[in-house]
Amino acid sequence: MELTTQEGRGARQGAALIVGAGDATGGAIAKRFAKEGLIVCATRRSADKLQPLIDDIRKEGGQAHGFASDARKEEDVVKLVDDIERDVGPIEVMVFNIGANVPCSILEETARKYFKIWEMACFSGFLVGREVARRMVARERGTMIFTGATAAMRGSANFAAFAGAKHALRALAQSMARELGPKNIHVAHVVIDGAIDTEFIRHNFPERYAMKDSDGILNPEHIADNYWHLHAQPRDAWTHELDLRPWSERW
Amino acid sequence: MELTTQEGRGARQGAALIVGAGDATGGAIAKRFAKEGLIVCATRRSADKLQPLIDDIRKEGGQAHGFASDARKEEDVVKLVDDIERDVGPIEVMVFNIGANVPCSILEETARKYFKIWEMACFSGFLVGREVARRMVARERGTMIFTGATAAMRGSANFAAFAGAKHALRALAQSMARELGPKNIHVAHVVIDGAIDTEFIRHNFPERYAMKDSDGILNPEHIADNYWHLHAQPRDAWTHELDLRPWSERW
Amino acid sequence: MELTTQEGRGARQGAALIVGAGDATGGAIAKRFAKEGLIVCATRRSADKLQPLIDDIRKEGGQAHGFASDARKEEDVVKLVDDIERDVGPIEVMVFNIGANVPCSILEETARKYFKIWEMACFSGFLVGREVARRMVARERGTMIFTGATAAMRGSANFAAFAGAKHALRALAQSMARELGPKNIHVAHVVIDGAIDTEFIRHNFPERYAMKDSDGILNPEHIADNYWHLHAQPRDAWTHELDLRPWSERW
Amino acid sequence: MELTTQEGRGARQGAALIVGAGDATGGAIAKRFAKEGLIVCATRRSADKLQPLIDDIRKEGGQAHGFASDARKEEDVVKLVDDIERDVGPIEVMVFNIGANVPCSILEETARKYFKIWEMACFSGFLVGREVARRMVARERGTMIFTGATAAMRGSANFAAFAGAKHALRALAQSMARELGPKNIHVAHVVIDGAIDTEFIRHNFPERYAMKDSDGILNPEHIADNYWHLHAQPRDAWTHELDLRPWSERW
Repeated sequence: MELTTQEGRGARQGAALIVGAGDATGGAIAKRFAKEGLIVCATRRSADKLQPLIDDIRKEGGQAHGFASDARKEEDVVKLVDDIERDVGPIEVMVFNIGANVPCSILEETARKYFKIWEMACFSGFLVGREVARRMVARERGTMIFTGATAAMRGSANFAAFAGAKHALRALAQSMARELGPKNIHVAHVVIDGAIDTEFIRHNFPERYAMKDSDGILNPEHIADNYWHLHAQPRDAWTHELDLRPWSERW
Repeated sequence: MELTTQEGRGARQGAALIVGAGDATGGAIAKRFAKEGLIVCATRRSADKLQPLIDDIRKEGGQAHGFASDARKEEDVVKLVDDIERDVGPIEVMVFNIGANVPCSILEETARKYFKIWEMACFSGFLVGREVARRMVARERGTMIFTGATAAMRGSANFAAFAGAKHALRALAQSMARELGPKNIHVAHVVIDGAIDTEFIRHNFPERYAMKDSDGILNPEHIADNYWHLHAQPRDAWTHELDLRPWSERW
Repeated sequence: MELTTQEGRGARQGAALIVGAGDATGGAIAKRFAKEGLIVCATRRSADKLQPLIDDIRKEGGQAHGFASDARKEEDVVKLVDDIERDVGPIEVMVFNIGANVPCSILEETARKYFKIWEMACFSGFLVGREVARRMVARERGTMIFTGATAAMRGSANFAAFAGAKHALRALAQSMARELGPKNIHVAHVVIDGAIDTEFIRHNFPERYAMKDSDGILNPEHIADNYWHLHAQPRDAWTHELDLRPWSERW
Repeated sequence: MELTTQEGRGARQGAALIVGAGDATGGAIAKRFAKEGLIVCATRRSADKLQPLIDDIRKEGGQAHGFASDARKEEDVVKLVDDIERDVGPIEVMVFNIGANVPCSILEETARKYFKIWEMACFSGFLVGREVARRMVARERGTMIFTGATAAMRGSANFAAFAGAKHALRALAQSMARELGPKNIHVAHVVIDGAIDTEFIRHNFPERYAMKDSDGILNPEHIADNYWHLHAQPRDAWTHELDLRPWSERW
């Protein structure tokens, strides 16, 4: 275990809980942590969508388990963490990767949608963060990484709901980092600024997707490299926040 | 009407809706806008607590109405704005002044309290902001001011819930300012950094309260001066954000 | 002297030193402070350009003196402050309003110009700030306001020199506020985001200037109102930073 | 050359110019880039202090050259870059690692010291950045990393000079990133927040240094890992800014 030194360098054993292990970013992060030796525990709301990812990881020689779990529901989250800790092993790293934007004028935004966007992108992050923190603090070790966005840094027209949720998630990550850092828990926030190579972008923004040829959209595997890098940092030099954007992105 | 010029200077007529017109800040803001000529519409959850404020304003020759209204409930907020617009007059200024912190370790924070803190300090701000925006945009005039806090700018240990709510409220104000500014609606956010002269501080933090003698805690009337200043700014020179803190505050 | 209370509200007597009292912003600020009763001490590099401003103020019944002074030269600044304190009176408020941008690609920027932009917009702010601070701290009272810009908040293509100088000036104002606030000196920074109604804009950006008709550029008198507002704040509720921009400005 | 792909991943050949290759951070970064295959060009003001570093790198099988060069002098910087490009090879990466703080009350700060601190920590960064940018832009490739500090993010009492210089350096890095990113040049800024394991800390802050046993001060080699990580990022996922601090640091 080269990396499990007294310096607190990110461990290559134990469970890696990836909440929101979708087709792109979450899936790539899961594969990366599996490749490094951790036992991936991947979640989505629907179990069958997870199977291809689990199969892929196992085919490559990694260990992975799928969990159908709705991160917005406290009982689901409590059960998820209990099950993993009992059946798989101690959670060494948690990646929170949920959240969706549906841009809308403030004049047209519904209370239901405003709530739903916050519930998914922020409240579930709190639930997972708290449950995992309780285990990690007891062991005095672990890494938690929250996926952020440009909307975490500033509000914009039509982004009131999403910017609110992402600002609140960033505040959660920063509050947890300040409280849990001195307890040897590494909490980080990654600001992704640009389109990611996903089916969604390919179908809905074909012009944007065409920028893939010139590296103008983010490759999920390269995002995953940075999540691994954060986990692998020794504890004397932890990063709390970094941004990721394509070279050609205007910002 | 000296101030209702072509420059868009804040008007001295119409209704001033003060959501969260408590004993200190909200009450002082209500009095100030009444003194300048606006018809104050003050809200709290319970009507009887409002009466002393309404009486005070009327005694000074101002106009004021009290509304028992729960800003967390969409139907209450819709009705409140409908009632004021129909019975009192067009809402010229709205001040959102609700929010309460209950510091707590992330390890002990309950889902219920995390939600409640967001619902009160942020979700109700969205509901009121949207309803008022719909009226103001139709008239192409108006001012909205949201009360913020240091926790809107950074997270801290034991502040995950409150910092999340206040970050999200700031994102709301910024998103609304960017969308509604070009529609002639002035949206501002005030970062209050320090203890305010309230009964709560007097009872619970007597040492802090003793700093009142050396101006070490914020006088609600002086906060109100700044809210009026924001409303009175001509539209070629609008402030979106300002901070307020006592001279002796560490920051 | 209504405003010279124990609360530390900005005084209406003593000298107001306006460094960079040009035709637009600085001149308007000088007039405003003169109108409120302070004795204006206006500086520019060339004395004859100051005379019309001095004449205007006196015609309106105010008191004003012009000082030819190069704020980039320590001996000039030391002499300026000595002269005012000896011949005019104690400096109650100082406004630093110098700085000029000459956008340029980083590839073409000369060392001379990079230095000159910093020297004018930042180094002279340090010299004036320090000299005035020495007098104000001895008296335990006074206000200093530094004029900032959007470039104080973020760097941009072709803005390396100006953004550097304005970032550094903001750091100066923030460092001074944190050090001198507890000594009863109010230090503030104003972020002006938009074009100001000046001859320069009129001649060089006529399309932009045409926005004046719809209040799309900042009126110097309205900027001055905010500088006065900052000075007049009682010390229990001081603002360190506020932004000013036209309603229609994109940001 | 595994990493020199069409994706723009940081190259393992060419020259790595380390400006300010001192005993700790700069030296560790130089060793790391040498180990990865780049030809290190290390600078300090005095050549003899560089020799141990050059010897160390060569002993490990790396390539390195020392350059006595004063980064505050334009002619030195122009000559340095010319010499390297002609005699060693194209500069693939540049690390700017100069700057020193001498805390001082604003009341006591001298013009000379205020200037010197800016000249060293910021002006020399501009000179090196511009000269290197000219070469990199012509080739449409390269990485530049600027070492920042907490003082780049906020001013504090006694930090007016250093915070000003570091704010300005950050503005330089951000302006360059926005201008040069679309030209395929990766510009990054690293915010180091905490004490580094150096002789200076060991001698002057022994209590702080004692925290080394519990990883409470930054290990220069771990800082260097992050500089390498930034250089190695493929261009679809570049980081502009990251922070580094020990787990136990208060922030």
